[in-house]
Amino acid sequence: MTNFAKRMAYMQATADVIRYLFDSMTDPETISFGGGAPAREALPVEHVHDIAAEVLTREKRGVQALQYGNPIGIPELRQAVVERLLAPKGLQSKLEQVLIVGGGIEGLNLICQLYLDPGDVILVESPTFVHAVEVFKMFEARCIACQTDDHGLVIEDVEAKIKQYSPKMIYVIPTFQNPSGRTLSLERRKALAELGSQSDVVILEDDPYAELRYSGEALPPVKYFDQTGHTIFANSFSKIFSPGSRLGYVFADASIVRKLYDAKTATNSHTNVVTQILCAEFFNRGLYDAHLKHICDIHRERRDVMMECIKTKLPAEIKSVYPDGGLFTWIELPEHIDTTELLRDAVAQKVAYMPGREFFVEGQPIRNNCMRISFGGVVPEKIQIGMDRLAHVIKSKL
Amino acid sequence: MTNFAKRMAYMQATADVIRYLFDSMTDPETISFGGGAPAREALPVEHVHDIAAEVLTREKRGVQALQYGNPIGIPELRQAVVERLLAPKGLQSKLEQVLIVGGGIEGLNLICQLYLDPGDVILVESPTFVHAVEVFKMFEARCIACQTDDHGLVIEDVEAKIKQYSPKMIYVIPTFQNPSGRTLSLERRKALAELGSQSDVVILEDDPYAELRYSGEALPPVKYFDQTGHTIFANSFSKIFSPGSRLGYVFADASIVRKLYDAKTATNSHTNVVTQILCAEFFNRGLYDAHLKHICDIHRERRDVMMECIKTKLPAEIKSVYPDGGLFTWIELPEHIDTTELLRDAVAQKVAYMPGREFFVEGQPIRNNCMRISFGGVVPEKIQIGMDRLAHVIKSKL
Repeated sequence: MTNFAKRMAYMQATADVIRYLFDSMTDPETISFGGGAPAREALPVEHVHDIAAEVLTREKRGVQALQYGNPIGIPELRQAVVERLLAPKGLQSKLEQVLIVGGGIEGLNLICQLYLDPGDVILVESPTFVHAVEVFKMFEARCIACQTDDHGLVIEDVEAKIKQYSPKMIYVIPTFQNPSGRTLSLERRKALAELGSQSDVVILEDDPYAELRYSGEALPPVKYFDQTGHTIFANSFSKIFSPGSRLGYVFADASIVRKLYDAKTATNSHTNVVTQILCAEFFNRGLYDAHLKHICDIHRERRDVMMECIKTKLPAEIKSVYPDGGLFTWIELPEHIDTTELLRDAVAQKVAYMPGREFFVEGQPIRNNCMRISFGGVVPEKIQIGMDRLAHVIKSKL
Repeated sequence: MTNFAKRMAYMQATADVIRYLFDSMTDPETISFGGGAPAREALPVEHVHDIAAEVLTREKRGVQALQYGNPIGIPELRQAVVERLLAPKGLQSKLEQVLIVGGGIEGLNLICQLYLDPGDVILVESPTFVHAVEVFKMFEARCIACQTDDHGLVIEDVEAKIKQYSPKMIYVIPTFQNPSGRTLSLERRKALAELGSQSDVVILEDDPYAELRYSGEALPPVKYFDQTGHTIFANSFSKIFSPGSRLGYVFADASIVRKLYDAKTATNSHTNVVTQILCAEFFNRGLYDAHLKHICDIHRERRDVMMECIKTKLPAEIKSVYPDGGLFTWIELPEHIDTTELLRDAVAQKVAYMPGREFFVEGQPIRNNCMRISFGGVVPEKIQIGMDRLAHVIKSKL
């Protein structure tokens, strides 16, 4: 049978673990802290239903919704991005600097199409987002991890690795990072943007969680400090509107957006117009502010319950990150416990999580004793039950 | 500023012409035979509206529609593909052989991810679909055109070029081809499938127009004759349901679909669930058969009006293809007329078409005197007016 392309050889290992985890979650009895899904109770089902019933008619926007669209996205949604999402972060954007994409991963994919040749190096956080690494591997890039601490990427290590590896790109999730839940400090954001400009390296800033802040003060994005256009700001509507609608956006210099337009055309022509219209109406009817408060209230409670469970149910020697927002916390078990192996025990006990090993790449120690715990998709009572189960599984290995 | 990847250098020229054409079409006075859009009157706006109003509720499918989905697609839509779309073509498929993608172009893109390394050769028809060539260029593949006649690809030339170029893939639109409107004969379909198997070359069969047949007898796809799994069948819902919903599917051996799952994951996680549900309900409520008849009636009339206009309004020395279905006819002007240059005159006269040059690649003569005429998106009265304008522009050059 015809040989697959070289890039496919890099995909296998990660995909298998994710697929196993995905399969395990189809059991309704299993309480899963494994995925990255937001609360189903936080999805704007009623708003979307009402909007669809009103606007998807032939008199209003039904024809536009079902006909071909423009690769750059519909103007109303791009305008909503400029006014409702970028401006509140202090980001001044013109309409031609915003391209709508089919979700957060697609934004990363298109930016990789623009910049990555096989063998190019991309610096990432340690740990980093597993699905982003899948994208980078597909482009046959070499991912090198940089050191992180409680305040995110350690800039000195990034500088050293730029000198050592001459990377094309630095990938960072500065706020409520996936998987660690950590946030990059203000000073480091500024330093990272300047480093991108000085070293002529693209900073790919992925920011899907920043709006989900439950405590502490909002910080400006890395992009805010970018003077030269080296930082590209990629984002998703998955956490603030809905994952299933597959919407995201990229904000960058207009010259870059023009190239993204070409890459988008050769990837899937354009993003589906149906959900673009539903989402644009959601913003333009002024529903977003109250909905975001609702989402944050739901997830804040889950964060609080989860952190209390970690404190009270898990053994004292276990470390965790207290996240000021987002969907994740990160747990470190004693070094002798391999969380990839432990997952099979956990699934047998009807609880799941994401093994930490998947989030590490070369350049920093690969740590087998960590796990990502996603609290967003589980109701508080089930967080309690699930953490009882997980505590039981962990204690059996101590 | 950071250098773009090598692949981006291959994208520019085509994209510029398409973009010019796209811009010209925003003038509401211009009658455009340039795009590939189906009739707006043929879009199932009322069906989609009713389905959305009924099923996008929290009690029914609203939560599923807005939550993360599976990279392979929702089972109901894949089942509809198996039963309502593949079976009528004589294609027997198991559910695990069907992957839902974000439109026809995305299917091609994902298949390229699986097979194409930079420099790989892909054989195509001459002329061939310009947006497919954009995808192949993005993968830094070398497109080599094979000879065609009124019955499609000339198999002897394909055989010769397989020997000469050792291609990885052969790309073919066998039915109502884009841009020529021609259909590959039964014997050649069988021969092509066998050639793929014998030569270990992937046959990428792109079949978005076959359902839009207005005259003549349906033919089985190339895939029907495939004994070894070398033919991959890619299709789109754009012409039979709606382009804006961005839905398509790939039917292939399960081992290939499993790899496509990985590529899809690293491209955009999964296809949006909202339009998958709307489309699955459209099929499962039994609305498709009557709707397809409606679509065919509308487009048949436009085909007939267009062919009559070509016969009566254009000079007798101009050749055209009589298509038994689909959205396109192909016109050959006298050799001294360059249709790319002529487009500016045409747009000044408020009529547009797609210049033929864009559809040619190396391996066969690049012909400047052809144009693709898309009749699907224009109402009959405007076809008359637009063809009067086009006849005027053409006659001024004779």
